[in-house]
Amino acid sequence: MLRVEARFAAQGLATHLGLRLAQSEPGHCVIEVPFGAHLTQHVGYFHAGVLTTMADNACGFAALSLMPEGQEVLSVEFKMSFLRPAAGMLARATGRVLKPGKTLSFCAADVHVVDELGREVLVATMLATMMGVA
Amino acid sequence: MLRVEARFAAQGLATHLGLRLAQSEPGHCVIEVPFGAHLTQHVGYFHAGVLTTMADNACGFAALSLMPEGQEVLSVEFKMSFLRPAAGMLARATGRVLKPGKTLSFCAADVHVVDELGREVLVATMLATMMGVA
Amino acid sequence: MLRVEARFAAQGLATHLGLRLAQSEPGHCVIEVPFGAHLTQHVGYFHAGVLTTMADNACGFAALSLMPEGQEVLSVEFKMSFLRPAAGMLARATGRVLKPGKTLSFCAADVHVVDELGREVLVATMLATMMGVA
Amino acid sequence: MLRVEARFAAQGLATHLGLRLAQSEPGHCVIEVPFGAHLTQHVGYFHAGVLTTMADNACGFAALSLMPEGQEVLSVEFKMSFLRPAAGMLARATGRVLKPGKTLSFCAADVHVVDELGREVLVATMLATMMGVA
Repeated sequence: MLRVEARFAAQGLATHLGLRLAQSEPGHCVIEVPFGAHLTQHVGYFHAGVLTTMADNACGFAALSLMPEGQEVLSVEFKMSFLRPAAGMLARATGRVLKPGKTLSFCAADVHVVDELGREVLVATMLATMMGVA
Repeated sequence: MLRVEARFAAQGLATHLGLRLAQSEPGHCVIEVPFGAHLTQHVGYFHAGVLTTMADNACGFAALSLMPEGQEVLSVEFKMSFLRPAAGMLARATGRVLKPGKTLSFCAADVHVVDELGREVLVATMLATMMGVA
Repeated sequence: MLRVEARFAAQGLATHLGLRLAQSEPGHCVIEVPFGAHLTQHVGYFHAGVLTTMADNACGFAALSLMPEGQEVLSVEFKMSFLRPAAGMLARATGRVLKPGKTLSFCAADVHVVDELGREVLVATMLATMMGVA
Repeated sequence: MLRVEARFAAQGLATHLGLRLAQSEPGHCVIEVPFGAHLTQHVGYFHAGVLTTMADNACGFAALSLMPEGQEVLSVEFKMSFLRPAAGMLARATGRVLKPGKTLSFCAADVHVVDELGREVLVATMLATMMGVA
């Protein structure tokens, strides 16, 4: 999974936000970030844009991990549903490939937040289409 | 639109990314950001997460501008389609309310990038559901 | 679950297409339809519109099963991804509630087709938002 | 646009529902259906599944009209938002191509209902991804 690690690290945004590639296996990827004031929306929770960036990353790198060497992954589209306010100490996006393909890969990601007692709550879920390009 | 300006400024993420509230009118909102290395995905373009954060903001604040005083706006869900690679000097998200409502507001946003010659290209489009809460 | 059965039967479209309410439990619903020429798209498979109608029903009635008596369920929005061509003898949509709520319920559905040997294949998946109204 | 007409007519579902191909031009397509009891959901309005089938058709055939001869169009995914109850005498889906492509075409459709006085109301809107296959 060195390719995934390299592509993850090449993202200016991931560094700027403090995202971590917590896990990378074929067809599976976990992205985490500890809470910080730079990640908030207007009432102080994790911003939908942060959770979406993480889920997009988790889906994209899960898809990339199954693509032939030399391909890059691009986001075609995604849909994100926000089930609960994202208040917590850490956010974690877990992405998986629902169906890999030569051109398109269908992926899903769940985003949980973890509170100070270690309890995980599902706060958002994504359905995404990723494309492999030469 | 002082309420929109205040809520926009209250977002830690918007400040951290360098987003600007370029325009705010009833049912309409424009968010801009100049290109920077901190906003990139792994091949150097604007990251999908940045474009989505901007479109989410543009939809959310367009919706908030039509809500009764005292309400906050939350993102229920959105879908984003990425039409073209987002290479340019500036990204601009333009949000509008398709249908305001007591509980739910349906919104849409287009995201353009502007190149060094001032040419605008549509790179992404969002369909979103926003909710007003007390 | 008599309420779900009654509301299912009240749909002119479900009868016209030949949909069956195969299972209904709290927060869970299964809709089936045997293949027929009246359900096809232009290359002879199950039409995306049929699969979507089934998934919408499966999500909506899963949500309704958790709502207070007297409420009706309306589809706020959904997103459907089509993973594979839907060729088979039977289509089955299985819906579940991801998060019930006083106003909004977030739901998901998977659609499988079953071939002549009884093998199931996942062909589509939905993420939906349902609303309870008085 | 004979190709679009031929592909439209090849759909068993379109005939079964009574859909009409009202207009077909390059990158543009209109589908209509008069109200009938066979098209209803459980409170007597047009069923979300009917509106979605129409919007999917309008997007798909708008995309097909710009594809090279010999290609078929498949729905990759779509998202549909339901803005208002769809009560009326006629439903009309108007699809357009936002961005055509060699592999993927991004499309949008608006669905209106027309009441007995001829007034049109926007009831739903779709964002879709279509794929051309040999």
